[in-house]
Amino acid sequence: MKKFMDKDFLLESELAKALYHNYAAVMPIIDYHCHMSPKDIAEDLKFENITQVWLAHDHYKWRAMRSCGVSERLITGDATDYEKFEAFVEIMPALIGHPLYHWSHLELKRYFGYEGVICPANCEEIWNVTKKVLEDGLSTRKIIENSGVKLLCTTDDPIDSLEYHIALKNDDSFAPVVLPTFRPDKSMNAGAVGFADYIAKLSAVAGVKIDSFDTLCEALEKRVEFFAEVGCTVADHGFDTQVVFDPKLTAEEATVIADATLKKALAGEKVSDDEVNAYKNALIRFFGKQYVKHSFVMQVHFGALRNTNSTMFEKLGPDHGYDTISGEPSTLALAHMLDALNKDGALPRTILYSLNASDNANIASLAGCFQYASEETEGLINLPNVVQGAAWWFSDHLSGMYDHFRAYAHSAAFGKYLGMLTDSRSALSYTRHEYFRRALCNFIAGFVERGEYPLDIETLAQMVCDICYNNTKDFFGFKII
Amino acid sequence: MKKFMDKDFLLESELAKALYHNYAAVMPIIDYHCHMSPKDIAEDLKFENITQVWLAHDHYKWRAMRSCGVSERLITGDATDYEKFEAFVEIMPALIGHPLYHWSHLELKRYFGYEGVICPANCEEIWNVTKKVLEDGLSTRKIIENSGVKLLCTTDDPIDSLEYHIALKNDDSFAPVVLPTFRPDKSMNAGAVGFADYIAKLSAVAGVKIDSFDTLCEALEKRVEFFAEVGCTVADHGFDTQVVFDPKLTAEEATVIADATLKKALAGEKVSDDEVNAYKNALIRFFGKQYVKHSFVMQVHFGALRNTNSTMFEKLGPDHGYDTISGEPSTLALAHMLDALNKDGALPRTILYSLNASDNANIASLAGCFQYASEETEGLINLPNVVQGAAWWFSDHLSGMYDHFRAYAHSAAFGKYLGMLTDSRSALSYTRHEYFRRALCNFIAGFVERGEYPLDIETLAQMVCDICYNNTKDFFGFKII
Amino acid sequence: MKKFMDKDFLLESELAKALYHNYAAVMPIIDYHCHMSPKDIAEDLKFENITQVWLAHDHYKWRAMRSCGVSERLITGDATDYEKFEAFVEIMPALIGHPLYHWSHLELKRYFGYEGVICPANCEEIWNVTKKVLEDGLSTRKIIENSGVKLLCTTDDPIDSLEYHIALKNDDSFAPVVLPTFRPDKSMNAGAVGFADYIAKLSAVAGVKIDSFDTLCEALEKRVEFFAEVGCTVADHGFDTQVVFDPKLTAEEATVIADATLKKALAGEKVSDDEVNAYKNALIRFFGKQYVKHSFVMQVHFGALRNTNSTMFEKLGPDHGYDTISGEPSTLALAHMLDALNKDGALPRTILYSLNASDNANIASLAGCFQYASEETEGLINLPNVVQGAAWWFSDHLSGMYDHFRAYAHSAAFGKYLGMLTDSRSALSYTRHEYFRRALCNFIAGFVERGEYPLDIETLAQMVCDICYNNTKDFFGFKII
Repeated sequence: MKKFMDKDFLLESELAKALYHNYAAVMPIIDYHCHMSPKDIAEDLKFENITQVWLAHDHYKWRAMRSCGVSERLITGDATDYEKFEAFVEIMPALIGHPLYHWSHLELKRYFGYEGVICPANCEEIWNVTKKVLEDGLSTRKIIENSGVKLLCTTDDPIDSLEYHIALKNDDSFAPVVLPTFRPDKSMNAGAVGFADYIAKLSAVAGVKIDSFDTLCEALEKRVEFFAEVGCTVADHGFDTQVVFDPKLTAEEATVIADATLKKALAGEKVSDDEVNAYKNALIRFFGKQYVKHSFVMQVHFGALRNTNSTMFEKLGPDHGYDTISGEPSTLALAHMLDALNKDGALPRTILYSLNASDNANIASLAGCFQYASEETEGLINLPNVVQGAAWWFSDHLSGMYDHFRAYAHSAAFGKYLGMLTDSRSALSYTRHEYFRRALCNFIAGFVERGEYPLDIETLAQMVCDICYNNTKDFFGFKII
Repeated sequence: MKKFMDKDFLLESELAKALYHNYAAVMPIIDYHCHMSPKDIAEDLKFENITQVWLAHDHYKWRAMRSCGVSERLITGDATDYEKFEAFVEIMPALIGHPLYHWSHLELKRYFGYEGVICPANCEEIWNVTKKVLEDGLSTRKIIENSGVKLLCTTDDPIDSLEYHIALKNDDSFAPVVLPTFRPDKSMNAGAVGFADYIAKLSAVAGVKIDSFDTLCEALEKRVEFFAEVGCTVADHGFDTQVVFDPKLTAEEATVIADATLKKALAGEKVSDDEVNAYKNALIRFFGKQYVKHSFVMQVHFGALRNTNSTMFEKLGPDHGYDTISGEPSTLALAHMLDALNKDGALPRTILYSLNASDNANIASLAGCFQYASEETEGLINLPNVVQGAAWWFSDHLSGMYDHFRAYAHSAAFGKYLGMLTDSRSALSYTRHEYFRRALCNFIAGFVERGEYPLDIETLAQMVCDICYNNTKDFFGFKII
Repeated sequence: MKKFMDKDFLLESELAKALYHNYAAVMPIIDYHCHMSPKDIAEDLKFENITQVWLAHDHYKWRAMRSCGVSERLITGDATDYEKFEAFVEIMPALIGHPLYHWSHLELKRYFGYEGVICPANCEEIWNVTKKVLEDGLSTRKIIENSGVKLLCTTDDPIDSLEYHIALKNDDSFAPVVLPTFRPDKSMNAGAVGFADYIAKLSAVAGVKIDSFDTLCEALEKRVEFFAEVGCTVADHGFDTQVVFDPKLTAEEATVIADATLKKALAGEKVSDDEVNAYKNALIRFFGKQYVKHSFVMQVHFGALRNTNSTMFEKLGPDHGYDTISGEPSTLALAHMLDALNKDGALPRTILYSLNASDNANIASLAGCFQYASEETEGLINLPNVVQGAAWWFSDHLSGMYDHFRAYAHSAAFGKYLGMLTDSRSALSYTRHEYFRRALCNFIAGFVERGEYPLDIETLAQMVCDICYNNTKDFFGFKII
């Protein structure tokens, strides 16, 4: 029996331990996709207690609590911070096999030095230990620095002023690089609630009167340029429910419909599903060209079904733990979209993420249909230009990561795997990189243990370092030392 | 090498053995969903030979025989009971990895004391041993009592008289509680063959002239009330092929179409798919309200494609082994349905079962979007109100159960898992609870063995007992000692 | 730690080793589905170097190279053979977990006697060793003979003259039987580019003027008869993207639409999706009848999305590594198709292959709905007549094979599993049978090791020999000694 979460956690062989401790553990972190607040980093947000840093914005933990019938008062309600913490600790023993069980313990170990088990008997002790550490100055920046982060990308709306990114750029007291990500989902969702208001804001911030598809593109291009000036090299698109792309429309036809659709939506008229799809078709083609022009990486997230519980949405708003996996197929539309972009010369370096792990093999295989050599893809050396992104959200638990590794390895060169991202709102989540790296080393060592790959430490060590760090650095072209 | 199916079958560590033998094995059984005949229990059906109890109604075994090219004469035809038994024993060695291989051996071990291997060489011996045990009085009731069953729920149509349930209620000679389940599928399938006849019967039994959607609901409500009087607290809905629910219809709109659709169907006119969907939409909203009012648990089964082979359907009728997994997506419609019920205040405690294991993660995740605290859900303490049901039918083999455990554990608190049901027509199937419990203890112990959960016997034992028995008892609110 | 790919590669227990070395390894091979060129076999194609035999037509390897950003010049371009080989060897270390990693090593071991690791340091050595073996006479026929192949089926168009098959039939110097497979996909794809030209060629070769659905069938029947004369007993159908079959059409209705659709397509008019689907419906019913009449086995391949990258398609044509897994559901349409054929008395022995491993359980389960006894299915003894085919293409890696084994074993009698095929263009791929057999023996032994199946060597050995060889021989009715 292995000891509970000791230094060799998840490492099932001597080789796995060697690869992890000697190579993976010492590599710095590039977190190329997260949802941290640039304001919190710029202002170095501090926390009074563990609840504020651990439970205040974490819908993973909220969902786990709801799955135990915990009262909403103790989750998002007016209970005290201690009551909320107590309620979470109370359910921990039931979370066997849940990624939160490991994440939570790793977070207490690494940032608070607490080595005990999270359970009701230890509740008060944990509260006190963590309070002390927070009082001693464990702030947002400290957490990031202690994690070995070299660079992180937040997720930002095109209308954002990026003021905190600019402030951070000019702040020598904080070593990690903090960059924005261009995420224009609101401009894609023609006809959604608040769309016209959003376009009005975009119009104002870009200084372009938006009354047609052309002027919309003009405004968006200005924002791409502004983001690029602040250092942005990454975009992100979320297709809810499923990817939509009608391959029968030419770029010209899509643009004509997009123009009409935009005008209707701005006038407050109802737009049909087909019109919205054509609009998205035209707009993604525009974005593809922009990303190629500005050397942005395009991330595509799909397969999420958001705000399923409209009653709770009205009470709490979005991002409170009511999203789920959609189950609708996306592969075919995605294939058409990549093909259209490619034909237009508008296929940037691209990362594909599905929330549905049943898509793993499909996406790994589809990425392989649009991979080009370095001479055609902005000088990417020894790396593919279109890749399957790491296991996402509801899938980034332990067996989800292994399933993802396997799907990737079966379909493409696993040595070129892009590595981990946190996708998190909390700086404490940097332990997820540790979790990933332990699983990664164990996965790689497994092949050698089973006689399926040669015992060649040099090659294995290089592979580990590449996947933990080098591949990401090279794929995004981040300029860090 | 482990011994073949000895007392430590499926238990891969000392901890797994301790959890199973000390805790799981001694808990009684609540079988909250099965298809046993209340008549057979009330009348304590006896059997002349193993074929009658083992092969007469078991389409699992029939399918296995067909997968070996066995003649239908030896399956559902006019061969003698011994010939049929011989034909089944003949194919057993080919069933390596099939759940029937283990179920069959467990059944012979536990109820007939036969410890040998089921294979042609032992055919006559098994026939004789089992014949002796049946002659010595192993009846339907004996099997249930020997299995440690405290309570079981059969599956019953709203038009059923429940006479056998009433008889069993008044019969002190049989300790286990036998309750009906309200399964109104026939009333949902407007326009199906026999629909008008069925509604006529419902009309008669409820004493309500059904000529509109309102009167249909009136009749159904009377039957819900009748079932509740007999002790029923569980309903069950089967959506064939996929769940259908059009979220664009308001309750009022759906009801208007439902009324018109019902009238057309009763008049023998053709109804369209859209009309049937609207009808189902309105009716499930009605049922949801009834279940909340009467504190029924609602089970939703979906993803089955039934009676695929129309030639054999004409010869043998339904439930003869010609159903399959549908492969059509249901998650989106199900999300809309749960949301609509929730908005209406009509979301009862709910269990979601998909026949398609590719839905596991989707359903586990979706359940998490509709979980409320005890103060809002009829006093459920420390349990979720909407849950993913156990691996169902074509999925309840060994790795199907493990996959299901994992999907549940990744998405919700596994300690709150609802536990096993047989879904079977045969009392011998109670060994499937043993099969489940062995897998469960092995699954739980695995986390501890790998250092992923602390070695805390008290907590682990509690979790095992909860999943085997307590969670079910509390979720359904069964009043048993 | 096991040694890298030694004689016990993939065999994790003593029992697995015994089953493999004593039984599986010595059985001959029947390769019932491959894409080898009958011309190459007839003319006994020789190779100047490893690149010609290994890389010239292998889109698996091309995709792997693209997944490392290798220049197209080094893949399908004008680089020298040595440069291409070097580029492939260069990426090998990154292919950990990829089936190519094992296939490539097995091929060098078995056919070239090279026991080293494929890596840049050994590049020149491998080039020289393999060159020597090729110069010493390792030809196409030698590879096939050395592999223990008794019979292989190529894949051929109905318009093919089968001249090489006829030549091989009359050539006593080559022992393995080489048979054609009837693959009429081009006749199914009404309205596709080149359809009318294809029908013109079919018309010419069959000597039947095709101007209606009836005359199309007449021409195709002549070709079925011709193929049968040359020894063909196998057909193959590829449904791209998903299976289509509208169950609402009667055979007569489908035929009427098919006739009109064919005429439109031949006249160069546009045909709608619905028309094409009805045409396919009618034509597959025709083919089913032919296959029953001529005792052909029908293979159905579906779930592939082909030529996704239209830019590369224009440059390189089909089969250059730009196909993928479609992700669209097929189970429902397939169920309707099998039912219609069955009702028509037109369901031949059938093998179902999906490219999407998420379909595994669905297909295994669906096959079980159309299995008949030997007296109704051309005397198939102890074998099912409709089966799930082995893991296909993007799924035939190690864990893909295990997943497939499991899905089959859970749903049907695994002892009746049909065994492996290469589906390959290269004779070197016969090592995939070894790969399969090792995994098979390890899978079977696993049940015994875990106490889930009795240790009965005779039964286990028979099962291994059946799955490796006997089941295939009997299912297809191949007349070989």
